[in-house]
Amino acid sequence: MKNSTDLLLNSLLAGDGGRDAPVDEVFAWLRRRNREVGVRIAPTPFDRLAGWAFDPATGNLGHESGKFFSIEGIRVRKEDGTSRCWNQPIINQPEVGILGILAREIDGVLHFFLQAKIEPGNVNHVQLSPTLQATRSNYTQVHKGRKPLYLDYFQRARGDQILLDQLQSEQGARFLRKRNRNIILRVDDEIPAHDDFRWLTLGQIKRLMAGDNVVNMDTRTVLSGLRFNGFLGGLSLYDFNRFADDHRVGPFGRDLLLSELALSGYRSIDGILHWLSALKARYELVVDRIPLNQVDEWRVTDDEIVRPDRRFFRVLGVEVTIENREVRAWCQPLIEPMQEGICAFIIRRINGVLHFLVQAKIECGNFDVVEMAPTVQCLTGNYKDGYLYTPRFLDVVLNAPRERVIFDTKQSEEGGRFFREQNRNLLVEAGDEFPVEVPENFMWLTLGQIKEFLRFNNYLNIQARSLIAALEYR
Amino acid sequence: MKNSTDLLLNSLLAGDGGRDAPVDEVFAWLRRRNREVGVRIAPTPFDRLAGWAFDPATGNLGHESGKFFSIEGIRVRKEDGTSRCWNQPIINQPEVGILGILAREIDGVLHFFLQAKIEPGNVNHVQLSPTLQATRSNYTQVHKGRKPLYLDYFQRARGDQILLDQLQSEQGARFLRKRNRNIILRVDDEIPAHDDFRWLTLGQIKRLMAGDNVVNMDTRTVLSGLRFNGFLGGLSLYDFNRFADDHRVGPFGRDLLLSELALSGYRSIDGILHWLSALKARYELVVDRIPLNQVDEWRVTDDEIVRPDRRFFRVLGVEVTIENREVRAWCQPLIEPMQEGICAFIIRRINGVLHFLVQAKIECGNFDVVEMAPTVQCLTGNYKDGYLYTPRFLDVVLNAPRERVIFDTKQSEEGGRFFREQNRNLLVEAGDEFPVEVPENFMWLTLGQIKEFLRFNNYLNIQARSLIAALEYR
Repeated sequence: MKNSTDLLLNSLLAGDGGRDAPVDEVFAWLRRRNREVGVRIAPTPFDRLAGWAFDPATGNLGHESGKFFSIEGIRVRKEDGTSRCWNQPIINQPEVGILGILAREIDGVLHFFLQAKIEPGNVNHVQLSPTLQATRSNYTQVHKGRKPLYLDYFQRARGDQILLDQLQSEQGARFLRKRNRNIILRVDDEIPAHDDFRWLTLGQIKRLMAGDNVVNMDTRTVLSGLRFNGFLGGLSLYDFNRFADDHRVGPFGRDLLLSELALSGYRSIDGILHWLSALKARYELVVDRIPLNQVDEWRVTDDEIVRPDRRFFRVLGVEVTIENREVRAWCQPLIEPMQEGICAFIIRRINGVLHFLVQAKIECGNFDVVEMAPTVQCLTGNYKDGYLYTPRFLDVVLNAPRERVIFDTKQSEEGGRFFREQNRNLLVEAGDEFPVEVPENFMWLTLGQIKEFLRFNNYLNIQARSLIAALEYR
Repeated sequence: MKNSTDLLLNSLLAGDGGRDAPVDEVFAWLRRRNREVGVRIAPTPFDRLAGWAFDPATGNLGHESGKFFSIEGIRVRKEDGTSRCWNQPIINQPEVGILGILAREIDGVLHFFLQAKIEPGNVNHVQLSPTLQATRSNYTQVHKGRKPLYLDYFQRARGDQILLDQLQSEQGARFLRKRNRNIILRVDDEIPAHDDFRWLTLGQIKRLMAGDNVVNMDTRTVLSGLRFNGFLGGLSLYDFNRFADDHRVGPFGRDLLLSELALSGYRSIDGILHWLSALKARYELVVDRIPLNQVDEWRVTDDEIVRPDRRFFRVLGVEVTIENREVRAWCQPLIEPMQEGICAFIIRRINGVLHFLVQAKIECGNFDVVEMAPTVQCLTGNYKDGYLYTPRFLDVVLNAPRERVIFDTKQSEEGGRFFREQNRNLLVEAGDEFPVEVPENFMWLTLGQIKEFLRFNNYLNIQARSLIAALEYR
């Protein structure tokens, strides 16, 4: 078996030569799938949401089986000197789901097996999802549907097949400490094909991410954990450049690879841990589950759970009819955001090495209170009318000259829980005019440092991981 | 400023030449302090426990200020196929305390500033504690006592003074997700002396740990995070042996240092992360806070909170009078274990490198459900009468021939919360007859791998850290 790290680099830097199709054909295939599949999403009052009901005692909205997820309440007290308090609804799903991707060597290049999958909340119905995207309810088959495709591979996985296996967090403002197991599994034999699946190189997937809402959040979070430092760290700069020439890597791609090799940067890993420990010790968040009917400031109507001022988000019920899923029709609640959001990293060279400006962000559903987030992340606040506050560095991102914007796409949140939620994802390179000294809740990290923290649980939030996944090393 | 890692190795391997006193004098000093200080711990019925009361609605036992800690209840459901459920009292202290040690170079050797401190629950009253051991209530001075000594150094710390700064967990079976900030801070100037404090080398502290209940739990957890791989990793084996000769390091100490240099072992770091992710995904624990008066199977009497069968532990009230603390008299609840416990690591050479047999252990108050624990840890169960079950490998530890036992001492739990709780700490070296293949909730780690996981939060539990701290590199 060839070394996985070499195959992975080949996959990252591969030209448009995936086995199954070039990128343009994949785009066309997805558009076609979007036209072909029958999908109907009908908003439905809660009292006609089959299988779902409000608990008479708590007011929680849950499934009659007790499985899947429920909409409950939390009471949050922020111990940061302000003692700010609030209540909000939250998705409670106390189980670790599997987000799994099968990978396979094809002609010396690692390919990943992605699925054109419909999720009810998707803006455009079909997006590229992992090989397997299963909640525990799915794989224990609570819904009595078909067994998820390719589940067996993950259940029978041997240690030497694992390319990546991490527990990573979901959206901290919407989920209560939800995590998924992100796995990439290498298989050596041909596996049964299926209409909805394609083998794609990592380079291709990254080019697909440059399109709006093409690659779903689950795929992005799984791929974000892949590290490419492999054998490159042992090369001289001369050999590194020859390697980059051979793979037609441009100047920015080289800078990304060199940043990925840098485990020490503006601060050491221990220095960054010190920064995080100090913030985690200072900003405490006391989060208690409470019944949904005790969540004041929010009201439950016939067809939504919403604040009277309609801020942040609302919960609605939908009836879903889909043709190519294991279950063809069902009802479920979805979360709809009240406005779009922005997630952006500012990057800057420090001593010639690209650094990412990371924000230490407190979110109520975080597993570890503070996680590292993009420089700018305003998902649930409304930055346009200045209602709450203007997030730091938002102006830098929004006013960046065109040539400084490395990417700018819309990416969807997970369509199984969120209704047409898309956020603008930006990567902006700041010049030397941007100060190296930043406020204490910000920190400069090399890409190598980010990937090192990504290995361990609960350090980078899902929005940061999504942006990292989109980086093209070209 | 000299390189801290060199100074630290010098301190680890220092002969008995600490500035303040040789080890025997420190032992004598502690015995003397134990005789001299006036300390009285009087069990007190709850209704005479000044400042503390049961909440009429919840039955929780708390302080009238709302600070310090409270005794509440949790309901635990174990999702491991058994759906086992239980309720139990737990200590709730939703704040991150500081465990801080000041370090200083004295004659080329790093010294640590430890305090002979009384805690009410200590078996022997006085133990060596960190320079600073402060809850947030302490340092915001809720109890209106004196300001903790040396607190200023930690509040004013600069990044370049930090030798270590980690958030680490407390006892998962007794505390609800409690963590402390473990800090070691290097100072360059002489700092004000104080009767109760001594400057000691790491080598001395480790020799002191060979005595029963001399070095307290807080000191042990802080020191456990120190890494000694520094420049040694760059040496040839020839130079390494010369270095070890110069520092009079014996064969076992060399093996420990070599194990500490090994970041790859029986499994890679990524392989160990895979093992942990799989277990964390499989064994879920749903822990909800409940009022203490809803904790069935436990009863609250006039002077204790206890199970009718008197298993596990009990909560009692004490009135404490102590002479050398910031507050001289107070009342508080303490937790008393119902029997002693054992914490033991089995170590074994694999391909010549020392590996520690780590257990993935689920504890209800763990921050991350599963943490890495010693091979054997039976704290709250009763292994003697076989009531619950016989922990795996306990027989190996208890029946080990004398020459295989590397250390065997009694170490105390934190005396601020636990009443005379001491556990037998053992390190046993198994021979080639001990199988390398172990059950799936066990894993072999090198010391270097253990230290790597220790850098990041929530990987090694407090019992494992305590044993690691005790390792003597001689």
